Parts: sequence; C-alpha cells; structure tokens
Amino acid sequence: MLTRRKEQEIMVVATQTLEELCINSIRFLAIDAVEKAKSGHPGLPMGAAPMAFVLWDRLLRFNPKNPKWFNRDRFVLSAGHGCMLQYALLYLSGYDSVTIEDIKQFRQWGSKTPGHPENFETPGVEVTTGPLGQGIANGVGLAMAEAHLAAKFNKPDAKIVDHYTYVILGDGCNMEGVSGEACSLGGHLGLGKLIALYDDNHISIDGSTDVSFTEDVSKRFEAYGWHVQHVEDGNTDLEAIHKALEAAKAVTDKPSFIKVTTTIGYGSPNKANSADAHGAALGKDEIKLTRDNLGWEYPEFEVPKDVLNHWRKAIERGENLETEWNKTFADYKHKYPEDTAVFEQYLSGKLPTDWDQALPKYSTSDKAIATRKTSEATLNALAPVLPQLIGGSADLAHSNNTLLKGYGDFQKGQYQNRNLRFGVREHGMGAICNGIALHGSGLIPYCATFLVFTDYMRAAIRLSALSQAGVIYVMTHDSIGLGEDGPTHQPVETIASLRAIPNLTVIRPADGNETSGAYKVAVEYANQHRPTLLIFCRQNLPQLAGSSIEGVTKGGYILADSEGTPDIILISTGSEVYMCVEAADKLSAEGKKVRVVSLPSWELFDKQSAEYRESVLPKSVTKRLVVEAASSFGWHRYIGTEGAMISVDTFGVSAPGPVALEKFGYTVDNIIAKAKELG
Amino acid sequence: MLTRRKEQEIMVVATQTLEELCINSIRFLAIDAVEKAKSGHPGLPMGAAPMAFVLWDRLLRFNPKNPKWFNRDRFVLSAGHGCMLQYALLYLSGYDSVTIEDIKQFRQWGSKTPGHPENFETPGVEVTTGPLGQGIANGVGLAMAEAHLAAKFNKPDAKIVDHYTYVILGDGCNMEGVSGEACSLGGHLGLGKLIALYDDNHISIDGSTDVSFTEDVSKRFEAYGWHVQHVEDGNTDLEAIHKALEAAKAVTDKPSFIKVTTTIGYGSPNKANSADAHGAALGKDEIKLTRDNLGWEYPEFEVPKDVLNHWRKAIERGENLETEWNKTFADYKHKYPEDTAVFEQYLSGKLPTDWDQALPKYSTSDKAIATRKTSEATLNALAPVLPQLIGGSADLAHSNNTLLKGYGDFQKGQYQNRNLRFGVREHGMGAICNGIALHGSGLIPYCATFLVFTDYMRAAIRLSALSQAGVIYVMTHDSIGLGEDGPTHQPVETIASLRAIPNLTVIRPADGNETSGAYKVAVEYANQHRPTLLIFCRQNLPQLAGSSIEGVTKGGYILADSEGTPDIILISTGSEVYMCVEAADKLSAEGKKVRVVSLPSWELFDKQSAEYRESVLPKSVTKRLVVEAASSFGWHRYIGTEGAMISVDTFGVSAPGPVALEKFGYTVDNIIAKAKELG
Repeated sequence: MLTRRKEQEIMVVATQTLEELCINSIRFLAIDAVEKAKSGHPGLPMGAAPMAFVLWDRLLRFNPKNPKWFNRDRFVLSAGHGCMLQYALLYLSGYDSVTIEDIKQFRQWGSKTPGHPENFETPGVEVTTGPLGQGIANGVGLAMAEAHLAAKFNKPDAKIVDHYTYVILGDGCNMEGVSGEACSLGGHLGLGKLIALYDDNHISIDGSTDVSFTEDVSKRFEAYGWHVQHVEDGNTDLEAIHKALEAAKAVTDKPSFIKVTTTIGYGSPNKANSADAHGAALGKDEIKLTRDNLGWEYPEFEVPKDVLNHWRKAIERGENLETEWNKTFADYKHKYPEDTAVFEQYLSGKLPTDWDQALPKYSTSDKAIATRKTSEATLNALAPVLPQLIGGSADLAHSNNTLLKGYGDFQKGQYQNRNLRFGVREHGMGAICNGIALHGSGLIPYCATFLVFTDYMRAAIRLSALSQAGVIYVMTHDSIGLGEDGPTHQPVETIASLRAIPNLTVIRPADGNETSGAYKVAVEYANQHRPTLLIFCRQNLPQLAGSSIEGVTKGGYILADSEGTPDIILISTGSEVYMCVEAADKLSAEGKKVRVVSLPSWELFDKQSAEYRESVLPKSVTKRLVVEAASSFGWHRYIGTEGAMISVDTFGVSAPGPVALEKFGYTVDNIIAKAKELG
Repeated sequence: MLTRRKEQEIMVVATQTLEELCINSIRFLAIDAVEKAKSGHPGLPMGAAPMAFVLWDRLLRFNPKNPKWFNRDRFVLSAGHGCMLQYALLYLSGYDSVTIEDIKQFRQWGSKTPGHPENFETPGVEVTTGPLGQGIANGVGLAMAEAHLAAKFNKPDAKIVDHYTYVILGDGCNMEGVSGEACSLGGHLGLGKLIALYDDNHISIDGSTDVSFTEDVSKRFEAYGWHVQHVEDGNTDLEAIHKALEAAKAVTDKPSFIKVTTTIGYGSPNKANSADAHGAALGKDEIKLTRDNLGWEYPEFEVPKDVLNHWRKAIERGENLETEWNKTFADYKHKYPEDTAVFEQYLSGKLPTDWDQALPKYSTSDKAIATRKTSEATLNALAPVLPQLIGGSADLAHSNNTLLKGYGDFQKGQYQNRNLRFGVREHGMGAICNGIALHGSGLIPYCATFLVFTDYMRAAIRLSALSQAGVIYVMTHDSIGLGEDGPTHQPVETIASLRAIPNLTVIRPADGNETSGAYKVAVEYANQHRPTLLIFCRQNLPQLAGSSIEGVTKGGYILADSEGTPDIILISTGSEVYMCVEAADKLSAEGKKVRVVSLPSWELFDKQSAEYRESVLPKSVTKRLVVEAASSFGWHRYIGTEGAMISVDTFGVSAPGPVALEKFGYTVDNIIAKAKELG
C-alpha cells in the first residue's frame, strides 16, 4: 500500500486541468492559512481535497448566498481538525461567511475561521466538530431529522423535504466508540440519504494507524448494515469518487460508507503520508517544494481567476436550486395548506401559541408520584401540542418513562413516528440529538438515560451547550434514592459536574408543578437553541403546597416561609424538598422561624435580579442548611460561611432506596437536628 | 428465531442430570434472591447459567479458598446487572465471600451481594461492572496485563504467568461504544487468551433488540480481528459450549468471541424471552410455574447436597491448581533468582525502595518548560526504577509527551514493551487501564489525552475511583492557554467536574518540582489502589522559587509570603501560579503584604490538619484572589465571602494561547488590578 502511495505522491502533475487546479486551490489555501497561523492541520485538506471537490462541485445541493436554505444537503466535516478544507470550500464556493481575509485570519481571536468548525461562528458550517466521532454521529441525527420531516410532510406529488447528509470522517472518528454507536443505529434505521466518505489515509497523530488500528473498517460498516464501497485511489481518480457517490445515492434503503484511500499531505514531497503533515504547518521550504511538486505557480492565498470562476458557479447553481424548491413549495402550499401551516410553524423559529397551557398542574390533593412519572405525564401532555417534540431513551424507555403514547416507534420505513429507540448508546444518542437540533427545522429532540450515565455522553452534552443545540436531556434515577442498583448507578457528583457546564441549564424539580415548570423552561430554551438537562427521581414524592411553574422559571423561590425574617433557611432541590417542608413545619411548631427555598436551578436563579435573589436568600440570614442528596461540590456559594449541608460526599451503596436515604441522613428528623445544630 | 426459542423454553426437563441440576441451582438462587429483594435481574442468570456452568465447572482455573491466587483465570461478568449469576457461582464453588446468608441479603445495606458486582466488596469479583461495556473493556486490560507479565517473566521451561481472561457480555455491552473501542484494540493486539462469551438473548430493557440493534455482531468482531464462533443452542447444548471454549483456547493469536444464543429468563413459562424477565422479580406465581417447568423441587435458597458437592469439587481442584503453580514457581525461583526478585517485588504490594529519589528536581535557573514536558521527564526518570509503570496515550503520545523512551511499543508479539498505543479511544483506554490495575499484579497503568477529552472517558475514571483502581491519568492541554484549537479543545469546567469525583485526587502542578510532587503522590496512590488525575499545560512555565515536592504532597502551601499577616492571599494552581508570584512581587514593591499560595490539589489539602490549613489560609485573611484559568465552579469554599476570582465561566475561543489568556484576564497586570480592587 505504502509503496503505491509513495508513487502517487511523487507523480507531479505536468499539465493541470481546471479540475486539478480547483483541487489544488483547496490544498494551497489550507497550506498557506496553516503556515500563516503557524498552527493547524494541513494534511487532511491536502488529501481529502479531491473527494471534497467532486462532492461540492458535482453533487452537493446548497446555496452559498443562503446558507440556511431549508432543503440544502447537509455537509459535515467530522474530522474537524481539517477545518481548512471546509473554510476553503466555503470561500471558494462563494459563501459570504468566509472571505479570503477570514482565511488569512485562520485561528485568530475573533475570526470566522476558528481552529475547528463551529456552526455558531461560521454560516455554512452545520455542526461543531473536532472532538472526534461527533460529526458522523451528528450526521446520523441530521439524516434522521430529514427522514422524519420527509415522512411527515412529503406528498407523492410534492417532495418539499429531500436532501442528503454527507459526512467526511477520518481514522480518528472511526476509532471513537461514539461513531460506532451512531452508525450501528444508522444502519438499523436504514438511513438511505446518509453518505459517509471515509478519508482512509492510514495516518493519525501518533503516526501510522498500524500501531493501533488494523481492523477492517469496511467490514464493520457492512456488519452495521451499511452499503459499503471502496475508492482505491482517492488522490486522483475523480471519476471513481463520483461513481461511488452516485452509487451511494442509488441505494435508498441503507446509509452508504465509501472508503476513499488517500494520502495525507498529498503533494508534499517530504511530509506526505506521514504524521508530520497532520497537525503542523509544513514550513516555508516544504511549501515551496510542494508548490513545485504540484505545479502551483500562485502566491500565497491567491486563487487564479479561472479557478475561482469555476468554483463560484456554485452561486448560480444554488440560486437555481432554491428557486426550483421554492416552486415546489409554492405548489405544496397551494395543494396542502394545512400541512404547510404546520411546516411553516416548524420553520418559523417560534413555538405554537399557548403550547404551555398543556402543561399539567397539580394540587396537594393529587397523589404522590415520582417526578420521572410527572415527566412522563408532561411529555405526553405536550406531545399533541408540540408535534416538533421527538425523542426517546437509551434502552430505558420504561424506566425513564419517556414514551410518547400513540406516536409510534421511529423505525425504518416508519420515520414519521416520534419515539426514538436509541439502544444502549448514550453517547451516540446525545450526538444524534445534537444533529436533530442543528438540522434547524424546529424539531425539539429529547433523550434519556439514568442520570449517572450522563458520564457516558458528557462530550455530547458539552457540545449541545457549546454549539447551541436545543436538546432536552431527561435524566432519571437521580440519587442514592434509586436504591438497590448501588454505587455504579447512583449519581453523587453527577449533578455538580453538569451544573459546571457553561450554557447548560440544569433543573431538578421537586414535584409535579415543578416538573411542568422544568419543561416550560426546557422547551422555550430548546426553541432558543439552548440545551436543558432535567433531573427526575425514581421514588414517589408528594405534591407540595406552593410549588409552581413560575417558581421554577426563576430558578429558586420561597416555597414556605415564616413571618418576618427567618432564623434559618432550608435550601433544597428535587426529592429532598418535601422533607424540608415537613422539617420546617415541625421546627415552626417549636417556635423557630424557618423558610424553605426550593432551588431547582442554579442557572435560572443566577439570571434573576440581585433584588429578587436577595429577597429569597437574604445575605443577613447566614444560618442556612442545604439538603440535596448529592455531593456538596459547588454548594458553598449558597451555604455561606455559617451554613451546613446534608450531602453525599462518598459513593453510594446498594440498599433499598429509603434505607440508603436514611443512612446518608436524608430524614426529616436529621434535617431538624442539623438545623438545630446551626443554632 | 423466536419460534425455535419458544420451543426450547417450554421443553421441560423430565429427568435431570447432575449437570442440569447444577445449572438450575444457579437459576433458582438468582430467582429466589431477586424475589426476596423484590429487586434485581433474574433473566440473565437464568439464560446464561449453562455457559457459566460449563466455564466454571470444566475450564476456569481458580482457587475458591484463595480468590487472589495470582495465576487464576480472570472471570468478568460484563453484563453486571446479572450479578446473581456471579454470586451464585461464588457461593456454589465454595468461596468464603458469598454464603447462602449473603445471597439472602442480596442488594441489602452492608451486604456482600450488592446490586452490581463490586470487586471492593466481594472477593472473587475481579472488576466492578454494571455500567455497560466496561467489563469487556476491563477484560482487554486484564488480558494485556497477563500478556505483558508473561512476556516479561515467563521462561521456556517455566511459565509462571499463564491464565485466561473470560468475559460474559450481553447485548447492552455490545451496543456501547466503549466495548467497540476496547475490542478493536484487543483484536489489533491479538490477545489470544481473552475469551468473550456473548449472551445473545435478543432482549434488553426496552424489549426485543429488534427495535434498535440489528447489526451483525459476529461480523463486527471478525472485522476487529477476533476469532468468532456461534453456539446456536446455549440453553441446553453444553457440549457445544465446551467445544467452542476449547476451540477458543486453541486459537492463540486472536481473542475469541463466542456468540451463545440463549433465552433470557429460560424456564419461566410466561416471562422467558421477554423484557419482563430482565430487571424485575418474577413474582411468586411465576416462580412456582418456573419450578414446575424446570422440575426444581427444592425450597427457596436450597441447593441439593449432591449438586452442592459437585460444585464444591472446585475447592479441591483449586487447591491442586495452586499447589501445582507453587511448584512451578519454586522451580522458577530456583533457576531465575533475579527475575523472581522483580516478580516478587511486583506482587509485594510495595514500591521499590527509594524509587522517589529518581524524581527530577529543579531550581530557578532551569529553563522554562511546559509541565507536559516536565511530566515527560518525570515519566522517563521513573521508567527505569519503576518497571511496573506501563501506559500511553489515546493517539496523542507526542502532544501528551507520554512515551517511555527505549521501552518499545506494546504490540502483538511484543508484549514485554511498555508503551501502550490506545488509538483515538479514550473511553476504552480508561477502562483498559482499570483492568490492568485490577489485575492486581502491581502494574501501574497510566493513560493520557487532552484534558477536555476526559469527558469521553469519564465513566471509566469514575469507575477507577469507585473500584479502587490505581490508574494515573495524565491530562495535558489544560486550559484556554492551549490556544488555537479553540473551545472544543479548551477545558473550562473540566477541572471542576473531575474534582467533584469522590476518591479521585486531582493535581495541577505549577512547574517542574510540583510535577515531581504530583507523580510522587500519583505513584504512591496507585500502589494504594487509588487513581490520580494529573493536569499539565502546553505552554512554557518558569521554575519557581520555593516550589517543592513536599508542598504538593500537602495539596497546598505557601509559595511566597509577606512578613507578618498578609493583607491579601493570591491562591493559584498550575500555569497561573507564576503570574501570581510576579504580581505579588510588584504588589510587595508597592508596600502590600501579599502571600502566594500554590494549591495544586484540593483533595490533598483537605486531608491536612486544620492547623496546617489555617496556617496556609488563615480565616482572618478574607481578601483572597483565586487565579485559575478555569471555571469558578466549586472555588467559593476558598474564595470566601470577600474574595474574588479570575475565572473562565464561558467557553473558550480559538486564538493563540497568549492572546486567549490575556483576553480572559490572565496577565500579571490584571491580577494586580483585581487584587487592588479587593482593597
């Protein structure tokens, strides 16, 4: 293999066709930008330029002047370190988001060309990649979104949803478990419009993949149920790439995996096919040699006019494509006004009017139930009024209580259904939901597992927060209170670790009304492209007097109060709030002035005015007892210097939930005792 | 398929052989224990009992009376929810750790039979499983440990290291990405003594795996380079199971994957082959029907004497096996005294004398270098004196600087080497290192990636902490200071999220001496079965006056001080400490009394006496400025009510490291300004 490649890489192109020049224009923009920044990854753009050119020039349907055109094909560079490939494509194709000046500012403060592709910085970038394996998993989500919308809206005589999702991924992506999880599901679902190009260059940061990655990747994808092809010479055989892409499109009942064997750093005489080309500037001398070798006569950052003109045909093509689609849509609108209304509502960026009126409300006479069940009730109350809501669980649907009753399973050929069955694939689930959210079509994805298993999917949750993906995370079994499953399943530090993530709003409701409040925030935030993580318990909880949707939206509020300034404030969240209410009742009966503050969300509370926060937690009241069945980590800001907390600062233990809670001090009596210790 | 299974499951056994009774003894112990606890998972033990019986009765080499016998085969129940299978096996085979009383206490407070297998609770359990996919990945680590020790110590005429690692895993394990990562590497490494039995029962919590998991698992393992077999009737065909296991053992250059098709809840007339048998007690009536169906005439928790006698032959077998090994070892000891000394040192549970004398020491005249490089220097200084040290990186060896120079790559046929090449498989890497540590042979595994990618492997890190696995995590590129790679690669909340994990010690050293201090703690902790996570930076840092190994071992110490009580304390960690020292110098020149506290590890500092902590951070000094290039989350306990922090509470940004640091306020001037604001 290496020998053959070595030959290819020294094959200097004598007379270049326009297409070859187009491909080299990608290569040298990448080379020059990385060299100027003295930072970045030239190797992938140099090797993957031919497949990217064929795809973008001959197949990809997009409109550079309207990067958000709904029916565009989605393109994902899962190997995000090769982002100069994508920036070059955006610039060359005529997007306004990336100018030649932006490329010169590659990886600089405030630029549109950051070190990895960021959808929130650069129009034309669909998802945020770089953490390996995420992009291909996002691609599965994008393709699922397309399949769902197509099944829901398309008519035999009017296909308004009809696009492909193309992904370029590398060796690193294929080594990551998250890609395996998502691709296994993608194969199961038969996502025929998902096409992945595997940049098979056999080099990763540590050198040849021979040191750690010798599996038969194509065979693995066959095992997943994908349609698999191999382009043996991805460096020069444009027609083979094109043919493979066409063949992939022709297979409509399976996703397609095209292994395209390439040479990393193609064209660099001394660095091609080595890790030297992967993640550092080639250097002045090697760049000169590469220019000579590839016959590229142009100074840095210059693309010859003919070449740019060819690339820029994308603008007219794109305009035509959108115009054509507009006609299709106009026809659809005429024939199917009701569907159109729903479709337009999805795309409007707004939620249906009065959707929140469907949120269940509870009174103290309602029975005690677990918040995972009030969550179920809420999801099912919202399902009819929020048709955008689509989601499911990582094989815990009946434990997480996440099934939308009567809305069927999203399966091959049943893409109109709304219950997603992720299998035991938490990480893939999160990344898929990011893809669904970032499809940008108004869908609100939710996904669920046991709270402790957010550890499996944390990288995806972080990317929801970073890349503005409006995902709702529904996490149940939230403390030692889950009982017998024991410490492997009992979250302790998990809540703290999630509260620490910027842009992620964590809400732990105390009862039914607070559950409704949590969903009110979560749905609104999803609509505003912000993720929310909801935390629910397994054990039954009473419906509390004074709990409210509005209270939750403020993050924290006074649930029960004394007259005048309290002697002590009990601060609590979720399943421990009711215990605090009972303790406060007893303490009050003894003459103590006790306030109970329910604080379901730190992030929401921090957003309130200083006055409001002071009214809930006056600085002067320093005797504060925090009660949460979790780690004290992070709570000191509320505890203050004279407060205390009943916390779990070790791992949990296998025992029935009530026993575990009691042993760790979560009883009304212990709350009373600790409160009295504070004075 | 289902039809055939249905037939099997109603095949009532008329006259039972002793072996069938042995198998049913597992089933009914599981059924009865789950019923008594009203909690647990009977389905897997009922279906997997035949394969477990064949393995434990006919092949597994172990000594029930010495669960820690070095050369035992390792058995891992990766599908940990089926733990009653393992407890039944331990009890039946005669381990002292699990009595019939313990089984009656299944999942109760303080029992030896928790809800998932926990190595730290139950002798005979090798690793902690339950979070799916971890056990099989641990198994890869166990097999790597065996391969390494065998290559290092065995002689043609004396094999003192010679055991198999057997794993039972289920559908859930096979859906998780972590298992794919580890098994791909296991195939690459050709771990011939790793044998996995896949309990292919087609049922997970949500019901039939048809809803989400229809890939060809066997083909996937073939693609990984495993030897793959299929036992079509795992319910009754004991000889087929036995034959497959023998065939697996005969393949010495590949790990083996045996798909054993079984019926979950085998024997239960109404619940077999359904999710009802998975995770809940069968219920009194169904248990009666199951007893009838399987012809099990014995009351709950009773195992007939003949059956128990047969099982208990394991005791004599085990004693003989150990005696035999002792002879081999005595012979080895005689012939190879030097190797024996090293081997015994490994197994002694102690570190080599004076190992820590090898830790590099630095003075202020030494050049400024990044702590990732002082980490490299330390690893390489320790490599000769700590032959137990073995590890590597997730394809970032040259960025994490983790190569042990001159110690070769651990590869197929080169298992004596010490540089592990994990590929881009962070999660698998962590779980593999847990396996290596829990092999219990003194090996000290370390593993590395960029700090932000601890998110990918967090579930494994948590299990290190929970299951007392002495792993050293070497995490580099620790802040926005890494620069151009941008927010996807820049940790912000990551340090806080790791500090929150119980039993995990996090250390962020400020220079070379502190790096040595960090490794001093990490190696000692690893030896004490505790994980440590070390955090290193990418940018160069000066060697500080007053920094010390001893200081690090205390977690926090005074690095620079004023005379008398300071007006203000600057508290810092890692790459920001030197800035605080410079700021303190300038403030001192202006007449301020400033103390600089280096606080590389909260966990270590919290372990010090109250007096020591007060001497470093006197309560009376409330003007405190914390400087750490990370989230403020959790810092309030040190900041106090009158302090402040220069923190990063949003995601980072792509820009050169110095620019990013400056923009976020990490400059000497800004530290001075903020310090002055405090008064």
